[in-house]
Amino acid sequence: MYAIEVREHIMIAHSFKGALFGPAQALHGATFVVDVAFMREELTQDGVVVDIARAHNTLKAVLGRINYRNLDEIPDFKGKNTTTEFLCKFVFDAMTTAAREGALGPGSAGVARIKVTLHESHVARAWYEGAVRG
Amino acid sequence: MYAIEVREHIMIAHSFKGALFGPAQALHGATFVVDVAFMREELTQDGVVVDIARAHNTLKAVLGRINYRNLDEIPDFKGKNTTTEFLCKFVFDAMTTAAREGALGPGSAGVARIKVTLHESHVARAWYEGAVRG
Amino acid sequence: MYAIEVREHIMIAHSFKGALFGPAQALHGATFVVDVAFMREELTQDGVVVDIARAHNTLKAVLGRINYRNLDEIPDFKGKNTTTEFLCKFVFDAMTTAAREGALGPGSAGVARIKVTLHESHVARAWYEGAVRG
Amino acid sequence: MYAIEVREHIMIAHSFKGALFGPAQALHGATFVVDVAFMREELTQDGVVVDIARAHNTLKAVLGRINYRNLDEIPDFKGKNTTTEFLCKFVFDAMTTAAREGALGPGSAGVARIKVTLHESHVARAWYEGAVRG
Amino acid sequence: MYAIEVREHIMIAHSFKGALFGPAQALHGATFVVDVAFMREELTQDGVVVDIARAHNTLKAVLGRINYRNLDEIPDFKGKNTTTEFLCKFVFDAMTTAAREGALGPGSAGVARIKVTLHESHVARAWYEGAVRG
Amino acid sequence: MYAIEVREHIMIAHSFKGALFGPAQALHGATFVVDVAFMREELTQDGVVVDIARAHNTLKAVLGRINYRNLDEIPDFKGKNTTTEFLCKFVFDAMTTAAREGALGPGSAGVARIKVTLHESHVARAWYEGAVRG
Repeated sequence: MYAIEVREHIMIAHSFKGALFGPAQALHGATFVVDVAFMREELTQDGVVVDIARAHNTLKAVLGRINYRNLDEIPDFKGKNTTTEFLCKFVFDAMTTAAREGALGPGSAGVARIKVTLHESHVARAWYEGAVRG
Repeated sequence: MYAIEVREHIMIAHSFKGALFGPAQALHGATFVVDVAFMREELTQDGVVVDIARAHNTLKAVLGRINYRNLDEIPDFKGKNTTTEFLCKFVFDAMTTAAREGALGPGSAGVARIKVTLHESHVARAWYEGAVRG
Repeated sequence: MYAIEVREHIMIAHSFKGALFGPAQALHGATFVVDVAFMREELTQDGVVVDIARAHNTLKAVLGRINYRNLDEIPDFKGKNTTTEFLCKFVFDAMTTAAREGALGPGSAGVARIKVTLHESHVARAWYEGAVRG
Repeated sequence: MYAIEVREHIMIAHSFKGALFGPAQALHGATFVVDVAFMREELTQDGVVVDIARAHNTLKAVLGRINYRNLDEIPDFKGKNTTTEFLCKFVFDAMTTAAREGALGPGSAGVARIKVTLHESHVARAWYEGAVRG
Repeated sequence: MYAIEVREHIMIAHSFKGALFGPAQALHGATFVVDVAFMREELTQDGVVVDIARAHNTLKAVLGRINYRNLDEIPDFKGKNTTTEFLCKFVFDAMTTAAREGALGPGSAGVARIKVTLHESHVARAWYEGAVRG
Repeated sequence: MYAIEVREHIMIAHSFKGALFGPAQALHGATFVVDVAFMREELTQDGVVVDIARAHNTLKAVLGRINYRNLDEIPDFKGKNTTTEFLCKFVFDAMTTAAREGALGPGSAGVARIKVTLHESHVARAWYEGAVRG
């Protein structure tokens, strides 16, 4: 399986509900360095997984919806804890939609799997990996 | 599949037996930067894989059994080469036991897989990944 | 000149005032990975700059005053933009006070300079370096 | 599954054919930091996946065939875009051959899978992972 | 002294003249991850060294002059070895000019020193640091 | 001031004397990732600080004297705590001698300063920087 992976970052505020979270129940924030990997069995005729420039731009567009925001105030996240794991899935869903809609260019249709990794610090990160179903 | 990964480190001395190891047959040492990833299919009600604070503390407790030690003198490792690969499995076994015993909190029972990575330098690392069987 | 440097991190929310900041005028947040370096001309009798464990603990105590907080609500920061640069100086001032008060152990008195670096993402960081005056 | 991974790098020139590549159609270059991971179900009698020194040396020998070269002038790559993904597969093929030929020492025969990652910058990388078939 | 530092990268081809360079006398290439730090004694009224967005954009514009190029064909570099050290100075000169011309926004005039670091691989880098003279 | 910096690593065992060191009084070990930077005011005729290949080889030779060793048994270190800071100075002294003896090639004589950084983990490092006196 081939993969290419691109990196961007966001800087957000949020708070968590539940005793489990201890001090993170207060309003705080995070820089998430976001890696998105696109996987496919064979390369396109150009010799790529997908166009890396389009992959980068698509990721920027997706992250633009939550960057520099207080996630507690985003209606789609209402009633959810926007944990690092949760946000991995949010980015995964948006990127799989983009792949299915051809936003990654010529190779979009053949993307088999996507993996999204969010680094929240030098000692913790989360990821979500799954198939891109047609 | 979701994952969260936490990082700690240990500083140990050891030596290896076997011509294969060349100069590493002498007593030397290593800093191992240790990443442990916990994977599960669905998030808990709190929206996490497991409680990251408990994951960190459990990892520290496991590593505390070998940190600042000469591994050649640990009875459990007698007759074994404590290679980076071997130590990945040692940490994996301890962490799967911890997961089964509920040490990671509410999400412990649902952890499906664990991956342990030991970075021994900027140019070499090892990992062990496996299922957490019930 | 000798130096030792230790690393911790914080996760905070804040907002900035001023058109210069563009989207960062909204409430957002950051993970700051914080490196603090202590410098001195000669090593102590033990052969260290300062006790690295005490340095770590002192840094954790200083960062604990702002970790998991909305910096907009901290009285001491009222009317200030808590930029990465500004926070470098905040940590610098607290660490120089700690050094002068002996909080770093036997080597505290000889610390000549301190450098504080805050990494706000994989593409941006800030630092403040200055003398520890008696 | 156990794995060990070693790191080397190469510095090459190349150009791409196809409008997809935009400015990268011009002759340019790259540093590729190359990670190769060897995976197997069980450790050897010595307690390793393979001999890490032999793994390093084999990787250096493979990379020596393209290091400090203009890839546009290498006959084997004629008519191909030597993208990061393509080069991952090139290294993968060479390393699987080496494994099958025993170049990695005593553990060579048991290597089940190989993963090759090429980091082309701090924000982009590619990999290829596959089975080592007998 | 305060500093902020931003990061970008370029991918170039070049060759060196002189037996000293061994295999690097052939046409090859490099990814340079470029860090530029701006230093000043006091922060601006906004609480920054300079506007980080403008700093990033200015760096991108400077690097755009050499990115995706064969440096052997750039007239300004004729007769020069475009070593990592040399390119640090090239970026330094362009950034000091930008600072003097106010391209970094309100804080431009107060920038006292600039440091440019080029990472050429995971095991080698170069830098140039100097004063911004009026 | 120009600089180039090269990286190698060592894996050693040692123990410390003194209550200050807590658990590190026991025999343990470390991987030290070692960066050595060479600084000079002007580049050589070839356009370099020093020959990077010779710099790398010289560093390897210096580190070879302590790599894969128990530092407690090295006569030159008798009665010393081989702390990270102490080892920075050991490498610094050896590299300044090498520079003065011309081991770095044509540029050796002009090296004005050397900085040696030892990374002992992902959260701690030390350095020593000084002039190369004639």
